Amino acid sequence: MDPAVPVNRSDVEDAARRLFGHVRRTPLLSSPFLDDIAGRRVLVKAESLQHSGSFKFRGAWSAISALPSDQRARGVIAYSSGNHAQGIAFAAMLHAIPSVIVMPSDAPAIKVANTRAYGAEVVLYDRAVESREQIGQALARDRGLTLIRPYDEPLVIAGQASVGIEIAEQAAELDIFDAEVLVCCGGGGLTSGVALALETHAPQMRARPVEPEGFDDVARSLAAGRILANPALSGSICDAVLTPKPGDITFPILQRLCGPGIVVSDDEARRAMALAFLRLKLVLEPGGAVALAAALFHPPQADTVIAVASGGNVDPTLFAQTLQDFDG
Amino acid sequence: MDPAVPVNRSDVEDAARRLFGHVRRTPLLSSPFLDDIAGRRVLVKAESLQHSGSFKFRGAWSAISALPSDQRARGVIAYSSGNHAQGIAFAAMLHAIPSVIVMPSDAPAIKVANTRAYGAEVVLYDRAVESREQIGQALARDRGLTLIRPYDEPLVIAGQASVGIEIAEQAAELDIFDAEVLVCCGGGGLTSGVALALETHAPQMRARPVEPEGFDDVARSLAAGRILANPALSGSICDAVLTPKPGDITFPILQRLCGPGIVVSDDEARRAMALAFLRLKLVLEPGGAVALAAALFHPPQADTVIAVASGGNVDPTLFAQTLQDFDG
Repeated sequence: MDPAVPVNRSDVEDAARRLFGHVRRTPLLSSPFLDDIAGRRVLVKAESLQHSGSFKFRGAWSAISALPSDQRARGVIAYSSGNHAQGIAFAAMLHAIPSVIVMPSDAPAIKVANTRAYGAEVVLYDRAVESREQIGQALARDRGLTLIRPYDEPLVIAGQASVGIEIAEQAAELDIFDAEVLVCCGGGGLTSGVALALETHAPQMRARPVEPEGFDDVARSLAAGRILANPALSGSICDAVLTPKPGDITFPILQRLCGPGIVVSDDEARRAMALAFLRLKLVLEPGGAVALAAALFHPPQADTVIAVASGGNVDPTLFAQTLQDFDG
Repeated sequence: MDPAVPVNRSDVEDAARRLFGHVRRTPLLSSPFLDDIAGRRVLVKAESLQHSGSFKFRGAWSAISALPSDQRARGVIAYSSGNHAQGIAFAAMLHAIPSVIVMPSDAPAIKVANTRAYGAEVVLYDRAVESREQIGQALARDRGLTLIRPYDEPLVIAGQASVGIEIAEQAAELDIFDAEVLVCCGGGGLTSGVALALETHAPQMRARPVEPEGFDDVARSLAAGRILANPALSGSICDAVLTPKPGDITFPILQRLCGPGIVVSDDEARRAMALAFLRLKLVLEPGGAVALAAALFHPPQADTVIAVASGGNVDPTLFAQTLQDFDG
């Protein structure tokens, strides 16, 4: 493999070694009821059960654990009000190092409280008049903090790849070597990581990104052969996977290794949440359910489809409403 | 160990071998938020993620897989409208043998449909005028079916013991050897199985049964030193753990190996369901949440408490209502 590639095979294997014993090996679940709906075998990689409630903990652990110890001791910083923030905060807490999370002052109180409870210092900024980058850069400079980007960061991608390694190993235990692996896709960190892992560990499997309607920048970029942006950044309940455009590091990996993108509606994502509740006893957030929605309602022709259920950090009111709307 | 004891050490180990590769090794989860509430370390054995949505699949597999092949081929029969029915039906389906489940004709349609979808023949009877035992015995005799009891059955207890073996192994990976293990308790099949496994695999751990208020037959029987019955058989939302009295086989095991019973209210069980949703991303049914409720709200003095979350087969409406009632 070309050493100039930003994430290579040894990065993936090194990250897996750093993560071993620290991330949860999440189960690969199934239900005959879901197989019936899809008309083929469906396996679900339950990353909602990962520490901090999403796969983001893997990339966070990978990045933090790779820092030189003196640099790590000074702490890390991230911009996020979502799963990346919680993953970074919890991984930093377990490393006993400081973390600073820069969040908009209008972020939901529960997200601020959760991030603080994971041990992070939350710095709020006013989106209307302040720049999070300026605030973050000043903090990073003054305190020597290391910025960890949510997806366009080789160490983060290498960490997310561990999901793909586990899928390959767990599928092999079931004598499955050939499958389409559907991945909830925002900036492409998880999808590119999984694709890199499958290239080595399950070469007959192929990753495909799944996005919500109206935010299908990756699907369109793959089809066009160049990076295209989303026209908007809000308007879907699948907040965890809404990003402006594919990353400069993730996109070439997606382009080289992934099949075409799949696009699902918000209602399909919510129906997948209700089915994951009923048939797998999993709590999924909307953005964490898009791959399962694709597996159930837009299944590929492969005999086996593996869907990564990427996160479960969902508001109880939205979850309760979804169960009521899609009961049965 | 006395060979006259109905379930001995070799039964437990034999069952574990039969189950290997067929039951899910469910994860042992944790959250710093739950540790804070309990004031000690809390680990949760997520049997809600077991095949068929509860630990009952283990006992079902154990019993079916132990039958001589000609007897097994004729099929099995069970009386249940709950988790035991689904566990038996699914284990029978995977063994490609017939199963008959005898259910009251007023059982919820979804339970009948689920049990049928797992491949079982459902025979309905009118509770007012028919005896399920007479119907079941006639069917068993005519077709050569083997009756599998839900808890007072050595092969079932030996199967449930595999939960305890996994707890011992997974806790040891975390360097935990000393803990109280709280178990959702109906007739005592799971609790006695776990206690038997811990006796050998984690001798410093002690199992304790947890029951809902008003249905604390096991706690009272342990305190009295003899089998006492519940005054009623309905009136708690924790339907999965409502049984008339401890079993003749399970009670002596509980008496020999378990600590005192713990009793929780329905509201504590529902609060534990809401916290399992929020902090662990697990779907638990009320009866499957009583041990977690005890761990959080009645914790023992041990530094570590392990709660078995025994099942997740809960009605969506009840679950949604619980999230609304206990939000935050």
